[in-house]
Amino acid sequence: MLRPYIFEEAPNMAMVTSIQKFDVRSRDREELIDVTRQVTEAIRASGVTSGLCTIFVPHTTAAVTIHENADPDVPRDLVHAFARAIPNEGFRHGEGNSDAHAKASLVGNSETLLVDGGAPALGTWQGVFFCEFDGPRTRQVWVKVVADHL
Amino acid sequence: MLRPYIFEEAPNMAMVTSIQKFDVRSRDREELIDVTRQVTEAIRASGVTSGLCTIFVPHTTAAVTIHENADPDVPRDLVHAFARAIPNEGFRHGEGNSDAHAKASLVGNSETLLVDGGAPALGTWQGVFFCEFDGPRTRQVWVKVVADHL
Amino acid sequence: MLRPYIFEEAPNMAMVTSIQKFDVRSRDREELIDVTRQVTEAIRASGVTSGLCTIFVPHTTAAVTIHENADPDVPRDLVHAFARAIPNEGFRHGEGNSDAHAKASLVGNSETLLVDGGAPALGTWQGVFFCEFDGPRTRQVWVKVVADHL
Repeated sequence: MLRPYIFEEAPNMAMVTSIQKFDVRSRDREELIDVTRQVTEAIRASGVTSGLCTIFVPHTTAAVTIHENADPDVPRDLVHAFARAIPNEGFRHGEGNSDAHAKASLVGNSETLLVDGGAPALGTWQGVFFCEFDGPRTRQVWVKVVADHL
Repeated sequence: MLRPYIFEEAPNMAMVTSIQKFDVRSRDREELIDVTRQVTEAIRASGVTSGLCTIFVPHTTAAVTIHENADPDVPRDLVHAFARAIPNEGFRHGEGNSDAHAKASLVGNSETLLVDGGAPALGTWQGVFFCEFDGPRTRQVWVKVVADHL
Repeated sequence: MLRPYIFEEAPNMAMVTSIQKFDVRSRDREELIDVTRQVTEAIRASGVTSGLCTIFVPHTTAAVTIHENADPDVPRDLVHAFARAIPNEGFRHGEGNSDAHAKASLVGNSETLLVDGGAPALGTWQGVFFCEFDGPRTRQVWVKVVADHL
């Protein structure tokens, strides 16, 4: 099948997408905030129907995780579990937030979602949560989407 | 070099790959299960020879990790270490599995592998493990592969 | 707009990039080592200006994280926090390094960065750190970059 590549045959073709950014405003020192809607909108805006979407948090005392969005007790329990595993004592760093750094590193600064049908492929109970570990602050979340083919 | 793009010159070109899914059956409440073979087959089926492969677990009390596949004591030690770091007590969520939620969040719902030569690029001792934290259950693992070029 | 695809219109088109690899030499049993420079060079060498970059550590007792590169006390505090959450006792695995396995699994074997303008998109205080948990050893870090469009 030797033929030139024609644009009309590539409905999934993505433009060079600059990074999409949105703000998150935390109210507590430690808090999980549902950002599923913003991520879904970023994927739609990218025009990519099938591929990968990486969500990146450009901070060192915040993170991103994929977790249950049904019972609000679950995000609170996560905050509690992380605080118990990483107590904020015995550290050298002068700012007093080394626990936040360690939690951010364990939870992780990025998550990669599968994109299918122009939307994030998530399990029934899953949402994308921004994790604040040293708030309250105004934070950023960055999103980039790549297509999986021509 | 001004010429039309010809399909025959793109051996790595991937089709629009729908997400590939397979089931995992856990037998214990907490257990690591080697799924390297299934992931390797999904990469082969995608037709992508060079790119990235993201493995995504669509559950909130299970996760995926890349770890040693040689000594079966290592997965058991991981389960033990996670349980010690995140004891299941002091939580609010009514289902009694908040420890599983926290472990899933720390270990992570996705892993991204490098794809080279149509196979996952893994270190000598590495395998891909599904992590059950609230079994036994029948679970799903989702896989998506993107090519790194035309 | 029906026209053949022309190479000159695709400044971001990546070649089939083989995995780029570099060595890291750790000096202590547990240590975080800044590899931001090597990752930045690998992205530049790939020729990709916009896309995703996955950093993969092919070892089972080492990991990679994105973290603060300003105050050297922060990496030391991370090592301390991880060691406190995962004490090296009560394990079965005969090599005596099960804590290192568990830490590697929690911190994670891969990180995915956003690539923009041919460089990694990082927050002001962020760097990429190789995490040694069972050194001193000579280790490898693997990097792969995919473009986000034609």
